[in-house]
Amino acid sequence: LNVAVQELTASAGEALSFAELPRPFKLWRGGELPSGVIAYESWGTLNAERSNAILLFTGLSPNSHAASTARNPEEGWWERMIGPGRAIDTDRFFVMCVNSLGSCFGSTGPASINPATGTAWQLDFPELSVEDLARAGFEAARTLGIETLHAVVGPSLGGMVVLAFAACVPNGARHLVSISGSGAASAFAIALRSVQREAVMADAAWQAGRYTPGEGPQGGMRIARKLGTITYRGAAEWRVRFARSGLTPRSERAARQAASRYPSGFGPRFAVEGYLEAQAERFVRVFDPNCYLYLSRAMDCFDLGAHGDPVHVLARSGLKSALVIGVESDFLFAIEEQAEAAQHLQQAGIPTQFARLPSIEGHDAFLVDLPRFDARIRGFLAST
Amino acid sequence: LNVAVQELTASAGEALSFAELPRPFKLWRGGELPSGVIAYESWGTLNAERSNAILLFTGLSPNSHAASTARNPEEGWWERMIGPGRAIDTDRFFVMCVNSLGSCFGSTGPASINPATGTAWQLDFPELSVEDLARAGFEAARTLGIETLHAVVGPSLGGMVVLAFAACVPNGARHLVSISGSGAASAFAIALRSVQREAVMADAAWQAGRYTPGEGPQGGMRIARKLGTITYRGAAEWRVRFARSGLTPRSERAARQAASRYPSGFGPRFAVEGYLEAQAERFVRVFDPNCYLYLSRAMDCFDLGAHGDPVHVLARSGLKSALVIGVESDFLFAIEEQAEAAQHLQQAGIPTQFARLPSIEGHDAFLVDLPRFDARIRGFLAST
Repeated sequence: LNVAVQELTASAGEALSFAELPRPFKLWRGGELPSGVIAYESWGTLNAERSNAILLFTGLSPNSHAASTARNPEEGWWERMIGPGRAIDTDRFFVMCVNSLGSCFGSTGPASINPATGTAWQLDFPELSVEDLARAGFEAARTLGIETLHAVVGPSLGGMVVLAFAACVPNGARHLVSISGSGAASAFAIALRSVQREAVMADAAWQAGRYTPGEGPQGGMRIARKLGTITYRGAAEWRVRFARSGLTPRSERAARQAASRYPSGFGPRFAVEGYLEAQAERFVRVFDPNCYLYLSRAMDCFDLGAHGDPVHVLARSGLKSALVIGVESDFLFAIEEQAEAAQHLQQAGIPTQFARLPSIEGHDAFLVDLPRFDARIRGFLAST
Repeated sequence: LNVAVQELTASAGEALSFAELPRPFKLWRGGELPSGVIAYESWGTLNAERSNAILLFTGLSPNSHAASTARNPEEGWWERMIGPGRAIDTDRFFVMCVNSLGSCFGSTGPASINPATGTAWQLDFPELSVEDLARAGFEAARTLGIETLHAVVGPSLGGMVVLAFAACVPNGARHLVSISGSGAASAFAIALRSVQREAVMADAAWQAGRYTPGEGPQGGMRIARKLGTITYRGAAEWRVRFARSGLTPRSERAARQAASRYPSGFGPRFAVEGYLEAQAERFVRVFDPNCYLYLSRAMDCFDLGAHGDPVHVLARSGLKSALVIGVESDFLFAIEEQAEAAQHLQQAGIPTQFARLPSIEGHDAFLVDLPRFDARIRGFLAST
């Protein structure tokens, strides 16, 4: 088990299942992992034909705990979307959420032990691609005897992964739901992520990736996460939510910690600053910096067009139908990108619904504006 | 002369004029400067009545060199907007552009020498407000015998400063042009700036503000500027301009420098990353980090409402007319903020034009989409 899992074991680690990857697991841009595992959690029951499985991919930072389970009763990141009678109905489907390859919540990634050296991979981990996340997720499903998913579903990075899945695993899924994703990162998103990565690498504690686990570039990660939090939401929402309010009692503790780092009068004063601080503290405690760099760069480099004309690529996917959801206020994964993915699917002859949602919560709307997403996903899956 | 001016003298410093501030110069939130200067440049001829002066305030980072002069023939930041027959017509107007109080291009700021100690003010500089920039600019004009400006004009931070001017200097100007400004920073803008400041302060070289001039937090400033550059433009423009292109010959040098800092494969690969790198390098060489922190925080804290009901405040300004310009794609100073400022001016009984421009260049459109801005400013000033 890798370093992150050792930490997890004390709390949520026991609730995870692990699927072994084929040995070796060859990566899309070259390089290979002599061995590796994918951590996952599941809900519902796999039927005898193994035909009712939904494979759920996550955004960059969540773990596989999408909803509470008997083994881990804590609320999951998509708690109200998954369960009996819910939009992703576990009375009908077997749902499996994987921790991404390259992440640090049980799956193999840069924080895992490299069997060749006995120490963490760190920057010796081979270059990671969105395609590898898709293929590793599929291999995890195959360990349960599943050769064709009923559907692949993913928001954000996951919305990229399901498109990569369609390109890399022909006939691997009958239906696809891509939420706030993209077939190719925009220059704007690349720019934002490059600044986040620079903040991590500029932190002296990064030590060119060779930090002792737990003693990594926390200051840089804090900046990266704050910027992430900003790009995941929207100005219109925050105008209502925070306006120009001062620190709230809820954010004051976090603000005091921040002020102690910057004893200059330039620490947090506004509610929104306290909110960012609290978000960052939570993230820095759990996410490995090198894993963050690898996943972030993989998002920049993803381009469905690298597989050939996207329409031709998707036409070979074997998909029977697709749902693409985009949010008008999302400026990280702009709605034009989802519109384009939907158009490519349609032109490939795959019946595709495109939902253009007016939520004000930006990229993160799928976590917040649940009624809108619930209705679309419920309706689509019911039709499959 | 302060540290920054000493550096400037070799190149552009000789082209500046300096206006002494009243002694002491009391700041709006308390504290005072025993002495101070405002650096400025000017174009055109002040008439005998001293009634044809336009006072131009800048954004956060530019200096007073808005257009070329006999003393400094280099192109200015608003070169095509100022001159004989241009939108701001120097055949008719005497135009004066001031370097902001608190900045580092000749005007007094945190990088200037504190006369009480003989060393740079650094964090002992009193808290700076947008109101102080407005009042210091007015005092600079008064040293030329100007008691009423024909107009005050400013983009970005300058668009805030002219609103502060209206509140702080009743009857100080007959007309006002506020471009991509705001009467009160949004939570979103505060959040973005707080991350920029944190990048500067998290850099160990900042040393709680006590760095040796020239040996300050360059890594942190680089991150802050890159993020600034992103927020000044827009995703739609960059989709066309950079798409997913690789490094260009023009950006390759900058990218090589960056790669040498991060010898890990995580250096720039895309054209947009090379562009950010080049922008950041230019900025880091000239801008003082503490000055940056002070001006950035001043923008967060500006709130016209702190002077009373904005409509009542503006009704006492003595303004005869106003032009407010906003850009639909600006997500740092959202168009709702300019619409609100225009509405307040109108409700105060001041005939106000509000121009809602569809430029795709975001907050920086006033530097790029010149035909649209030229037409609006030209038309407005002609009507005055």
